[in-house]
Amino acid sequence: MKVEGTVKSVKDQVKEWKKEGLSIGFVPTMGYLHEGHASLIKAAREGNDRVVVSIFVNPMQFGPTEDLASYPRDLAKDSALCESLGVDMIFHPEPEEMYHENFSSYVDMSVLTEELCGLSRPVHFRGVCTVVNKLFNIVQPDRAYFGQKDAQQLAIIKHMVEDLNMNVEIIGCPIIREADGLAKSSRNTYLSAEERKAALILSKSINLGRKMVEDGETDTGVITKAMTDLINTEPLAKIDYVKAVDGITIRPVAKVKKPMLVAIAVYIGKTRLIDNFMI
Amino acid sequence: MKVEGTVKSVKDQVKEWKKEGLSIGFVPTMGYLHEGHASLIKAAREGNDRVVVSIFVNPMQFGPTEDLASYPRDLAKDSALCESLGVDMIFHPEPEEMYHENFSSYVDMSVLTEELCGLSRPVHFRGVCTVVNKLFNIVQPDRAYFGQKDAQQLAIIKHMVEDLNMNVEIIGCPIIREADGLAKSSRNTYLSAEERKAALILSKSINLGRKMVEDGETDTGVITKAMTDLINTEPLAKIDYVKAVDGITIRPVAKVKKPMLVAIAVYIGKTRLIDNFMI
Repeated sequence: MKVEGTVKSVKDQVKEWKKEGLSIGFVPTMGYLHEGHASLIKAAREGNDRVVVSIFVNPMQFGPTEDLASYPRDLAKDSALCESLGVDMIFHPEPEEMYHENFSSYVDMSVLTEELCGLSRPVHFRGVCTVVNKLFNIVQPDRAYFGQKDAQQLAIIKHMVEDLNMNVEIIGCPIIREADGLAKSSRNTYLSAEERKAALILSKSINLGRKMVEDGETDTGVITKAMTDLINTEPLAKIDYVKAVDGITIRPVAKVKKPMLVAIAVYIGKTRLIDNFMI
Repeated sequence: MKVEGTVKSVKDQVKEWKKEGLSIGFVPTMGYLHEGHASLIKAAREGNDRVVVSIFVNPMQFGPTEDLASYPRDLAKDSALCESLGVDMIFHPEPEEMYHENFSSYVDMSVLTEELCGLSRPVHFRGVCTVVNKLFNIVQPDRAYFGQKDAQQLAIIKHMVEDLNMNVEIIGCPIIREADGLAKSSRNTYLSAEERKAALILSKSINLGRKMVEDGETDTGVITKAMTDLINTEPLAKIDYVKAVDGITIRPVAKVKKPMLVAIAVYIGKTRLIDNFMI
């Protein structure tokens, strides 16, 4: 397994692979890999001749008061995991390699970015779209793998690829959870023991919402109200949003429909966690 | 020569060419081709195995009060010219093929878009960046050819390709002029006989500015003042801008430097024309 730090070295390798007619699967990450990432890498490994994982904590997608500096990093552990999963190349650039001094381009989106995390993190999706666009141009993958946990991100990336006619297939993979239900996230590492217990309120609320849909409730207001009330029983939890939106346009929906995304963001102490279910 | 109207048909053909290891040269245009375009096509023909020309009057780069509806079109004549120059494929999509109903992505740029045409046409370069980004993803050219006449556009496209790590080489080609000096433009067709004569004031002003630099003038304020005064001797001319900027960042410069772009935009009657020189 190679670990490359420059755009040129990745492009040179990709060129060789393309010449040989090899397909490339790509998993973009911010590192501190967990079983959620591992599931994406396994899917990429199964579906492609070569697998590239990028590890880059992208400054552009963090707001000025967010956790860029404290975001957890462990390249040695990440490399060992990638190696064990049969990854062919890690791309691990420094910020200056991705954003040179005069960098001034960006990729952005209206509509899909205006609800959910786009509301509470206004520059976030511009940063995500821009860096993913760059990474796709560098790695030139046939397929790229994203977790359904970041459901709005997944919808946005799919939409960007379609709008801009990019030559990559986007594959969404299921949320991976801890045994007790908490969705896996690199940010779970921020939680104290007490907060870790309190964080269970997210998946409990997701389970409640899903059950209400299964039981025939059609009013999304009733569903999100019940989920909100449940989360509010947890003293350490502070809700950012609990919303039902169209699964493609990410616009609020009043009645249950397919595809529909019910998504939540909740602060547990200072840590902002997200979870969702899709029907 | 093929004339294709859908993204899929172009991508299918490009895929075949790539498989055969053929290089692709690309000339994006809005049609109504003149000798300026022909010079780009000839350069593409000399440097590549296959040549694609796109003809698309891109609604996204026109402001609400601009000349989208009246922009001149003549596909039959354009096709004949392309055929005679050895073009392999024309891509001529309808607007709905490029911008489907839920289209909501865009590519934009700060800094380089803030002066010159970016000031007087605020949505213009967002439209240019977005459509060129799309076209590059569709045609996947090895090299793309742009005229130096649209100097700010050329600088912006080069910068977008570098910032977003796109896999295409951008080649700028010299301004092509009428015998009397007027820079070739599809918009010259708007000019009445009287306006056509008046329009010569643009190239005269460009010649004056260039001569002043050659003669050793180093103060850009003195140069642009002299060019402005000359243009103002023409009663049919109304200046949009006369400016000296850094050739890469498109930021105003007070002293002559290299690379420097001196660019003008002047209304002749209702027709807005541009011209420039670069040192």
